Amino acid sequence: MSPGERVLLQFPELDPIVAVSATAHADALAHHDRLTKPRGALGRLESLGAQLSAISALVPPPVPQHPAIAVFAADHGVLREGVSPWPQEVTAQMVANFTAGGAAINVLARQAGATVAVVDVGVVGDLDAAPTLRLCKVRPGTDNLRVAPAMTHDDAIATIRVGILIGQELLAAGADLLVGGDMGIGNTTSSAAVIAALTGTPAERVTGRGTGIDDAMLGHKIVVIRDALHRMQTAHPDDAGDPLVVLTEVGGLEIGALAGFYLAAAAARIPVIVDGVIALAGACLAHAFEPLVADYLVAGHRSTEPAAQVALVWLELDPLVDLSMRLGEGSGAALAVPIVQAAAAIMRDMATFDSAGVSDKAG
Amino acid sequence: MSPGERVLLQFPELDPIVAVSATAHADALAHHDRLTKPRGALGRLESLGAQLSAISALVPPPVPQHPAIAVFAADHGVLREGVSPWPQEVTAQMVANFTAGGAAINVLARQAGATVAVVDVGVVGDLDAAPTLRLCKVRPGTDNLRVAPAMTHDDAIATIRVGILIGQELLAAGADLLVGGDMGIGNTTSSAAVIAALTGTPAERVTGRGTGIDDAMLGHKIVVIRDALHRMQTAHPDDAGDPLVVLTEVGGLEIGALAGFYLAAAAARIPVIVDGVIALAGACLAHAFEPLVADYLVAGHRSTEPAAQVALVWLELDPLVDLSMRLGEGSGAALAVPIVQAAAAIMRDMATFDSAGVSDKAG
Repeated sequence: MSPGERVLLQFPELDPIVAVSATAHADALAHHDRLTKPRGALGRLESLGAQLSAISALVPPPVPQHPAIAVFAADHGVLREGVSPWPQEVTAQMVANFTAGGAAINVLARQAGATVAVVDVGVVGDLDAAPTLRLCKVRPGTDNLRVAPAMTHDDAIATIRVGILIGQELLAAGADLLVGGDMGIGNTTSSAAVIAALTGTPAERVTGRGTGIDDAMLGHKIVVIRDALHRMQTAHPDDAGDPLVVLTEVGGLEIGALAGFYLAAAAARIPVIVDGVIALAGACLAHAFEPLVADYLVAGHRSTEPAAQVALVWLELDPLVDLSMRLGEGSGAALAVPIVQAAAAIMRDMATFDSAGVSDKAG
Repeated sequence: MSPGERVLLQFPELDPIVAVSATAHADALAHHDRLTKPRGALGRLESLGAQLSAISALVPPPVPQHPAIAVFAADHGVLREGVSPWPQEVTAQMVANFTAGGAAINVLARQAGATVAVVDVGVVGDLDAAPTLRLCKVRPGTDNLRVAPAMTHDDAIATIRVGILIGQELLAAGADLLVGGDMGIGNTTSSAAVIAALTGTPAERVTGRGTGIDDAMLGHKIVVIRDALHRMQTAHPDDAGDPLVVLTEVGGLEIGALAGFYLAAAAARIPVIVDGVIALAGACLAHAFEPLVADYLVAGHRSTEPAAQVALVWLELDPLVDLSMRLGEGSGAALAVPIVQAAAAIMRDMATFDSAGVSDKAG
């Protein structure tokens, strides 16, 4: 049984994830060579356009008109290890900030013409209802992954189901470009552990300063992640690379939901822009379920977190924006929305040498 | 007499160029620290927002609503040295493509909500009138800069005047963010020579493949640029760093216009996004006239041309987008327009810790 078939069995609500179109990819590159510019002169914009063609199997690809952002929020039991200077209640406070429209992701979404849905996958405490808030709490936060599994196997399945559901809802409502974001105090610790486990990278190479921690806290965070990985490998000597095991043992509820969100996008053959380190942890999980997912992912930006770099290399993704950002929420991915739209519009709207009567170069 | 006063004397139509506001810059950074995000988490977006505050002397800075792109077009006598595989008539053909709306810059401008004005500063041949075409021809192309001055001193002054005029016209029409672009077969040769002359960089370190030339043509292009620089230094042993001398001897008509365009933006205290290597040659000239101009410049993207990298370092500019582009036309700068708008919108629209009731981090 192929990995893709395994995914399907576990998530029957998901359509089969198929390979992107190699034919459309090649046709897109040939189309680019007829446009009125030196060949290759639009650089990464050309390869991005070809990816959009491969995803849609259309040349030119559709220009996304309805980008939709989902921000998945959850709390983390590992916070009691002292891995962040921020108190846990900030997760719920920021959810309220998202639903009130005052956070960075709200501003960047408005600039990009994108909607923002906020999803409670596992925030501690009951959240006030709000029009843009979806209540899908699997459980109120994870357990402390340093000393125990972050969640149960059933919880892990449930978080992925939340992500699939939200992705499918947004697509059914007309979204043609998805962006996943995150909120969860402590979640760079879990993300680094997930990425370390799936890519086989030592704790000290994936651990970063997150929202801004000092050297002492950074050293401690490395120990916490190392202990978590060791605990997982001891408990699962034979299946420590299984994405469900990794999610259960060292994951986060929002990270599982992000993995499901990416699976839903790929199953629907819709491009999805990946944000920073938490989103990339979800993307690595989705890739571990089904490697074909990677071709549907567009890396929005290069986060300053070291685990983000490890994940980008592992997923073979080349980010569009590199602005030393480390906020999460989907903020870096939201900044990349106009670039994705531009790449598609170039292919749809530019004149060809023939149509414009422009001479081609000699030789 | 200060360099700024010298500029003023030569271009009485220009308001004085003054330093950006250090107070507003500091206030902007302090404002960023109150917004609901970890301090510094928006990275380059924060420093960009602070620059927009410094330019406008307002915190938050205005969010640009009316970006305007001017594409300056001209021909180059050095083309007869065989420095490009493209025939000269492509310059005029691409101007027609711009006015018909089919070029990359047209597509990217539409995506960014920007207008495109096309300016004939020195295309060979008479161009057909078009609504978006401004006819400001100083002369039909430059002379061959390898063997003679590219233009006269009066021509050089006239090209700068064209750029100032166009900038002032766009600003009078309501533009609140400017973008300069270029079209001119052969103009990477002139741009590399200008940047080499002003920054004191050897020819082989500024010469690139432009629109895509082979190793033999690249070697020849280096010789052409070296000869031009040697000719200029022999003719002007004492004033080879004077921007008017550099423009006259090895410049291009569109490059001079771009320099004037940047001077006009700075004099009006309006931000202007710089494109790739040709635009950067104009920016280096503007900086040589008046160093205060640099603080009004936003580097749109990192071109793959080596002279662009030399100019970015010399101007101390950190580009927003790095997508291996090398097209010109203002295309890389146009892609940066939404990022500039986002940086300003973040400062205007994000909630503060106090207003949103979000707890700050400990310590």
